[in-house]
Amino acid sequence: MSNTFGQLFRVTTFGESHGGGIGVVIDGCPPKIDISEVDIQRELDRRRPGQSKITTQRKEEDRCEILSGVFEGKTLGTPIAIVVRNKDVRSEDYSEIARKFRPSHADFTYEAKYGIRNWQGGGRASARETIGRVAAGAIAKKILLMFDPDFEIVAYVTQVHDIVAKIDRATVKMKDVEKNTVRCPDPSAAKQMVSLIQRVRDEGDSVGGVIGCVARGIAPGLGEPVFDKLEADLAKAMLSIPATKGFEIGSGFAATRMRGSKHNDPFEMRAGKIRTRTNNSGGVQGGISNGEDIYFRVAFKPPATIALQQKTVTNSKQESELAARGRHDPCVLPRAVPIVEAMAALVLCDHALRQRAIAIAER
Amino acid sequence: MSNTFGQLFRVTTFGESHGGGIGVVIDGCPPKIDISEVDIQRELDRRRPGQSKITTQRKEEDRCEILSGVFEGKTLGTPIAIVVRNKDVRSEDYSEIARKFRPSHADFTYEAKYGIRNWQGGGRASARETIGRVAAGAIAKKILLMFDPDFEIVAYVTQVHDIVAKIDRATVKMKDVEKNTVRCPDPSAAKQMVSLIQRVRDEGDSVGGVIGCVARGIAPGLGEPVFDKLEADLAKAMLSIPATKGFEIGSGFAATRMRGSKHNDPFEMRAGKIRTRTNNSGGVQGGISNGEDIYFRVAFKPPATIALQQKTVTNSKQESELAARGRHDPCVLPRAVPIVEAMAALVLCDHALRQRAIAIAER
Amino acid sequence: MSNTFGQLFRVTTFGESHGGGIGVVIDGCPPKIDISEVDIQRELDRRRPGQSKITTQRKEEDRCEILSGVFEGKTLGTPIAIVVRNKDVRSEDYSEIARKFRPSHADFTYEAKYGIRNWQGGGRASARETIGRVAAGAIAKKILLMFDPDFEIVAYVTQVHDIVAKIDRATVKMKDVEKNTVRCPDPSAAKQMVSLIQRVRDEGDSVGGVIGCVARGIAPGLGEPVFDKLEADLAKAMLSIPATKGFEIGSGFAATRMRGSKHNDPFEMRAGKIRTRTNNSGGVQGGISNGEDIYFRVAFKPPATIALQQKTVTNSKQESELAARGRHDPCVLPRAVPIVEAMAALVLCDHALRQRAIAIAER
Amino acid sequence: MSNTFGQLFRVTTFGESHGGGIGVVIDGCPPKIDISEVDIQRELDRRRPGQSKITTQRKEEDRCEILSGVFEGKTLGTPIAIVVRNKDVRSEDYSEIARKFRPSHADFTYEAKYGIRNWQGGGRASARETIGRVAAGAIAKKILLMFDPDFEIVAYVTQVHDIVAKIDRATVKMKDVEKNTVRCPDPSAAKQMVSLIQRVRDEGDSVGGVIGCVARGIAPGLGEPVFDKLEADLAKAMLSIPATKGFEIGSGFAATRMRGSKHNDPFEMRAGKIRTRTNNSGGVQGGISNGEDIYFRVAFKPPATIALQQKTVTNSKQESELAARGRHDPCVLPRAVPIVEAMAALVLCDHALRQRAIAIAER
Repeated sequence: MSNTFGQLFRVTTFGESHGGGIGVVIDGCPPKIDISEVDIQRELDRRRPGQSKITTQRKEEDRCEILSGVFEGKTLGTPIAIVVRNKDVRSEDYSEIARKFRPSHADFTYEAKYGIRNWQGGGRASARETIGRVAAGAIAKKILLMFDPDFEIVAYVTQVHDIVAKIDRATVKMKDVEKNTVRCPDPSAAKQMVSLIQRVRDEGDSVGGVIGCVARGIAPGLGEPVFDKLEADLAKAMLSIPATKGFEIGSGFAATRMRGSKHNDPFEMRAGKIRTRTNNSGGVQGGISNGEDIYFRVAFKPPATIALQQKTVTNSKQESELAARGRHDPCVLPRAVPIVEAMAALVLCDHALRQRAIAIAER
Repeated sequence: MSNTFGQLFRVTTFGESHGGGIGVVIDGCPPKIDISEVDIQRELDRRRPGQSKITTQRKEEDRCEILSGVFEGKTLGTPIAIVVRNKDVRSEDYSEIARKFRPSHADFTYEAKYGIRNWQGGGRASARETIGRVAAGAIAKKILLMFDPDFEIVAYVTQVHDIVAKIDRATVKMKDVEKNTVRCPDPSAAKQMVSLIQRVRDEGDSVGGVIGCVARGIAPGLGEPVFDKLEADLAKAMLSIPATKGFEIGSGFAATRMRGSKHNDPFEMRAGKIRTRTNNSGGVQGGISNGEDIYFRVAFKPPATIALQQKTVTNSKQESELAARGRHDPCVLPRAVPIVEAMAALVLCDHALRQRAIAIAER
Repeated sequence: MSNTFGQLFRVTTFGESHGGGIGVVIDGCPPKIDISEVDIQRELDRRRPGQSKITTQRKEEDRCEILSGVFEGKTLGTPIAIVVRNKDVRSEDYSEIARKFRPSHADFTYEAKYGIRNWQGGGRASARETIGRVAAGAIAKKILLMFDPDFEIVAYVTQVHDIVAKIDRATVKMKDVEKNTVRCPDPSAAKQMVSLIQRVRDEGDSVGGVIGCVARGIAPGLGEPVFDKLEADLAKAMLSIPATKGFEIGSGFAATRMRGSKHNDPFEMRAGKIRTRTNNSGGVQGGISNGEDIYFRVAFKPPATIALQQKTVTNSKQESELAARGRHDPCVLPRAVPIVEAMAALVLCDHALRQRAIAIAER
Repeated sequence: MSNTFGQLFRVTTFGESHGGGIGVVIDGCPPKIDISEVDIQRELDRRRPGQSKITTQRKEEDRCEILSGVFEGKTLGTPIAIVVRNKDVRSEDYSEIARKFRPSHADFTYEAKYGIRNWQGGGRASARETIGRVAAGAIAKKILLMFDPDFEIVAYVTQVHDIVAKIDRATVKMKDVEKNTVRCPDPSAAKQMVSLIQRVRDEGDSVGGVIGCVARGIAPGLGEPVFDKLEADLAKAMLSIPATKGFEIGSGFAATRMRGSKHNDPFEMRAGKIRTRTNNSGGVQGGISNGEDIYFRVAFKPPATIALQQKTVTNSKQESELAARGRHDPCVLPRAVPIVEAMAALVLCDHALRQRAIAIAER
């Protein structure tokens, strides 16, 4: 199911960077959810190119159109198809890469897999594919909010290259994240990040970093005990985002240097509820949510497309050199924040629906 | 599909730690693969408890029986069912945890999800569940070897708590890994790891660490470009293993501090083939294998079950204390090595079959 | 998913006729359902060979063992594995068919598909495979009964060869069906059917017929509007039973000779509920249940295995002759009745769980 | 997976009758297949309304647009999205049915399932949904033809109400079918059918009938032995088409009155190949194709929407009457012919790809 994600809330994306358009079909959405193009556009605008000086200057309005599944402002329970047309297409920028494989990009592997590729703008490997994910995530968030009014999900840039922000995971809010173009809620670090990204771009280079994410208001009991552990599905969701190289939940890699007596989260009673005193588990135990905040971190590499000259080979096996000319992000993290949120929302919404199907006891 | 893994090579595990038995059904296995109980038992013996002084002392022979799908030493193309009976069961060890939730274990979350649980030995959350994965992995390895005689997969312990081994990822072999009980191919580090684990166990505590894994002999073209990226499916596979907290492929989290010009893997011609000079990508670009070694690292937390006294609450919401009495691993890494290999083999085998289905051009 | 059936209530069967055993893994079963081996055995006994003079004389007790997923008499929400060992195995009966393809059996097609087959007793194509379905169906029935106390499902033999029974579909009960060995609730027709089957068996031949089935107490709203229409999933379920050749729901093929004005089921109010006056729809409209009785008919061909001499070819492409010697059913219908019920229950239970996942409005 | 069909060749349709448009996403299509909008339009034109005097007079050009997955005339291996805009929409025709449930239509069951429905033109239950199926079927046919140059699939109207055509299943060709507007290759019967349909329409009524279908050039070995039997997947495919009530393969319901000795298809050698003398099996044995022609029949009911006055109830539970005013087909069979072909092609293409994944022996 290479282009479909989810078991009950199923999201299928389609579209190449430089074809007729990009889109998504969402199947399995419950009926009678209030949804409009405005709700979706709000999230798409956080992802779209050209939104600030530190992102690619490609001009795409990314206006979404809902083709089906919504009637008089409410979901019908039928598939929701959403399409965004490609507009600012400059295929001439890509003529050279029709022949030369861009280092660390997907050109060579697509050719190896399919024996053919749309070399205009990266085709399906373009980050434009994530438009469909963000659109679907907007709907997933609405559903999760309906299940629990305390639900919220906040992703933020916590590190760019060697600049590490100070962020209180327990209290960070989306409005703090949206205060600056780099989407880092630590204003001082944010300022440094913006300068670094601009400098790196001017040098024709790129940088990576880390996005943190926290989901609050998730009831205990979501997730499956074996293969579809909540953290396993989150890990897959995050590693399916272009340019990601790592994922850790709760204590993550730091847990490897802790002792069990220190790492374990003792249970205690708080306000009449069973809670944990610490949260090294990251809100998930044995693959299932325990009602605490779910938090995780995602590593992004520096973008592969850079203006500097690089060694490569051509599709006729000649060694060559290549310097990218298109319009590209020197750092994907600011625009990746809504994508991380969207993918997390898809996982959580899917598991929430799955849990409802078997929740006999509650009825 | 909570207990099934894979799209074409589909593995369904079943069984509780203290019920009739543990097992697996493998559906979608190609016909005419040579397989016997000996092949499977060899891998199970690397995973079984009581194999050395640094693992749990529970005595389980874990003898597997193939119930179906194999005829005269060859697979039939029909489902392969494999069962391992539970033998050394001491339910009395678990009487206290029928009432008290073990901190950072799955007791509370199972109760929240299902409203019922088999409290004997952790039930389905027990690491015994992984028997089925290791058995299936043994078959997956055979298939991958048939597709490419150079195929091999080597997992190894590369860190226990603060002891970090020196291992040459490019050359490490399984026989080096199997030379000591901790499964670390650096003999000096291995020695320190063994002492540390023994000391920690004597103190009633536990430790975590990192397992590295490398797969060689994987053809370019495996993996899917969007949601089922090879690294996404590997991430899910690894985070579905009990006690894991993180995953990174190739350069991983270190990539976040590199520049693109340094991180990119330049293409070059080598022995008539398109190869990359470096391998920060970890053998995967755009979700698809590029023919280089695939390598990744998995973070394991210290096991939750420890002999030290811990704070907790009961299922009637009373605060209480608990000290584990069962037989448990002070460090899961030595026994997790074959599990990591098995899960990686399941992902690679599944994608290899998927690629065959669409590989029109080759015919 | 060749050996798995269902989306949420997922049933995976395994096992050859003459291997270690036959079984099933049921994944996605809700927790806290009362279930025991007695419940399952009751249904298996209706399916097992040797139960009467008109079935095969193979002696199989078909004792089931629940290996996992049930604890203290209740389901855990984890996979339920059930195994039945093969006992009365006489492989010598099958030596000839190792070489000669039985006409209209699966020998040739298995060889074409897999290049290998377990020729002992039909391997996976044996009707013994349906043991797993019947076991799973017993659990599905329990769940459906929990959702609606009026739920019941009754299958019955309505035609054997040219003997057509008179049965009132609206009132027929399982106890009427179980009154005779042919499972036809019309006593007079049943008597004729038994004599016919015995005569045909004595002549070394076989006969087919029709099984009818009605499900009552199904709430409106089950089924999906497009591909997974309730009737589509029922059709697949029935055509997946060995020896079936046709399926019709409601008015079925007779509808092709009716006019719309006559065929349409007018709505009316009855006891405060929206009901239909007639039920040509068979309880399903637009793929979704409407609350009326769901009924359908399934065509079974005469069994392929007969004692009469038949023309065939060998696996070395020599023309030859073959007369079956094993123990076989001259008419599969009496033993197929519980299989039809089980498959219908699997479809209905799966759709009932699916509907719960999206039934937002009810909460 | 209510709106997705297929395991490897996966077809997801979307769209309501009276929304922005109707469409399909095809995922899992092999790369480098020649395809263009012309290929797809040719099939859509056979399905579109207003094509002759005996179909609905709704004017829809049904022009398809390929949004993605095709580049320079060839498939990319990525999802193919195809959209058809809704044009001739007259919502006023449907104002009455916003309140009154049309008998034997899906209005009531959608309301029961979702608590909401797009009452304009039947919404998702409209036969317009099948546009996506026909578009996908056009691609599936191309792939099957690439696998075997002898492949062809021919569906035809074989019965309308009580008019039964004489058709030689072994030799019928698509060009014979397309010779008249009713798509019946028996010219004399066709003439009677056209008059009957016109008469019935003038009377404000509707009629049903039977479509036959034969697929030639299918290699032995396609299909799965248990749940995904070829005939089971065909049955599901056919019963998922609106207005269908029955399915039979090969001898079908007639088999129920035959003896095994007569029904069995003896094997014989023909032109060096293992063939069957008769073909009561319909080209499938044990769920797997045997290389003979695959043929089956599908029963269609008379359309529910008729101009005659009918009894019904409103959504506020008042008894009422209703006479349809929209533009509707008095007999769906002529336009259903390409839909039957498309669904059969989807099943066969999916199984052909599945077989390639496991076909180890061939390599």
